[in-house]
Amino acid sequence: MENRAIGVFDSGLGGLTVVKEIQKLLPNEKIVYFGDTARVPYGSKSEKVVVKYSKEITRFLLTKNIKMLVIACNTATAMALEEIQKSVDIPVIGVIKPGSRRACKTTVNKKIGIIGTKGTVDSGSYPKEIKAINSESEVFQKACPLFVPLIEEGMIEDSITDEIASRYLKEFDYTGIDTLVLGCTHYPLIKNSLKKIVKDEVILIDSAEETAIEVRAILYNKRILRQNKGEESEFYVSDSPDKFVEVGQLFLGDSLKKAEFVDIEKYSCDEE
Amino acid sequence: MENRAIGVFDSGLGGLTVVKEIQKLLPNEKIVYFGDTARVPYGSKSEKVVVKYSKEITRFLLTKNIKMLVIACNTATAMALEEIQKSVDIPVIGVIKPGSRRACKTTVNKKIGIIGTKGTVDSGSYPKEIKAINSESEVFQKACPLFVPLIEEGMIEDSITDEIASRYLKEFDYTGIDTLVLGCTHYPLIKNSLKKIVKDEVILIDSAEETAIEVRAILYNKRILRQNKGEESEFYVSDSPDKFVEVGQLFLGDSLKKAEFVDIEKYSCDEE
Repeated sequence: MENRAIGVFDSGLGGLTVVKEIQKLLPNEKIVYFGDTARVPYGSKSEKVVVKYSKEITRFLLTKNIKMLVIACNTATAMALEEIQKSVDIPVIGVIKPGSRRACKTTVNKKIGIIGTKGTVDSGSYPKEIKAINSESEVFQKACPLFVPLIEEGMIEDSITDEIASRYLKEFDYTGIDTLVLGCTHYPLIKNSLKKIVKDEVILIDSAEETAIEVRAILYNKRILRQNKGEESEFYVSDSPDKFVEVGQLFLGDSLKKAEFVDIEKYSCDEE
Repeated sequence: MENRAIGVFDSGLGGLTVVKEIQKLLPNEKIVYFGDTARVPYGSKSEKVVVKYSKEITRFLLTKNIKMLVIACNTATAMALEEIQKSVDIPVIGVIKPGSRRACKTTVNKKIGIIGTKGTVDSGSYPKEIKAINSESEVFQKACPLFVPLIEEGMIEDSITDEIASRYLKEFDYTGIDTLVLGCTHYPLIKNSLKKIVKDEVILIDSAEETAIEVRAILYNKRILRQNKGEESEFYVSDSPDKFVEVGQLFLGDSLKKAEFVDIEKYSCDEE
């Protein structure tokens, strides 16, 4: 059992920020990653569609003999985590609980900002998780629908990205937040833009590191942490592997050598 | 035969600009429209995926007993028109030939600008069509990948859209173009932004009207123009119908009363 891989998926390449932290913390583990690059972005889609896509991807990853599943996408976590947990018998975690926990550990004044996709913000998942940890917290949310298209276009260091970020973050001006959760796994890629705009005292939280810590805790408790170095991680996408590898290497480096195309619609299930 | 509908599809809601012109020119015709709102945008996807999606949609529309098919999406026209034409026995047209023809009729100095998605621009379809009509033409292209996300977000009259448009169109500053083709059916929705930026003498071309003229010519030649007022047009989408109807009514008005969800993946074909 311990020698099976960890499945990780995201709507596109944002989930690689989670892969990076898992690799850092658990270098023995083999990861099988799926990026739904044909159907990115998820953030503007309805719950029905995101649940359907998440189930297809789960079905695909199960064919890869995984021992646990990480939904490294905030929108899919918000909309599909519970359904997926019910449908499989391996541990499944998302990124919203870890991100919320980290935010609650970080904030001093208990005023927390959340930025994410429209789907994540509308779901109310972050306020719910944060208040479950600390009911006195005040949570302020802002949907930032253009960030994912900008990042998927590679406009990482760009004056237009700065300008759009500046408009979105203006919403937090009078809230007094001291902590801002990057509630989308794409957003760490534009951390530099965001840092330029928020007040110096605001700490940016990304859930990737905390998610990796939760992965370790679960594997440890179930005694299925891998003891010896596993095989190379594998990467699968629903559109052109070349573009994915090109951009993905920017933050995974050499551990992302190649990716393979998967016709993900084949994992659709008729009864839905 | 003449009482069958005209099938029209697009990646999202942009194709409704073509529906509007067909309805204006051919008020008797019934239209069956499909907007691939779950998988929009197409402009950044690979040819393989766009061809696959276009075939699925064609298969769906054929179940609606259509007499001709209009690919009201520049990216899908550029990548999939020929394949679709080969695979069905009804007339199939795209929007690139009509747009090119209109541009060639309009330009005086034979310097034509094209804006479109990355997929459309990289395909080289516009330069090819335009030079086939007039080999002396000079064609200048610029991909504008953020316009579709902006429009699908409803940021139609917005300073950010103006700013992004201004950056993209700067590319044409020293080209001397007198004609600019809106090489994406979404773009007519931000005509006001574009007009503010281009020089007064530059005429903006959208292919919707010319496409409607071609539809009429084909139906007339085949003697299958509808003589009496047909049933209400039908609209189908791959994600939430509500959002589609809300935004779609902005330009179709009351003729778009409702839309229906279709699980488009069911029209996938295994042999691909």
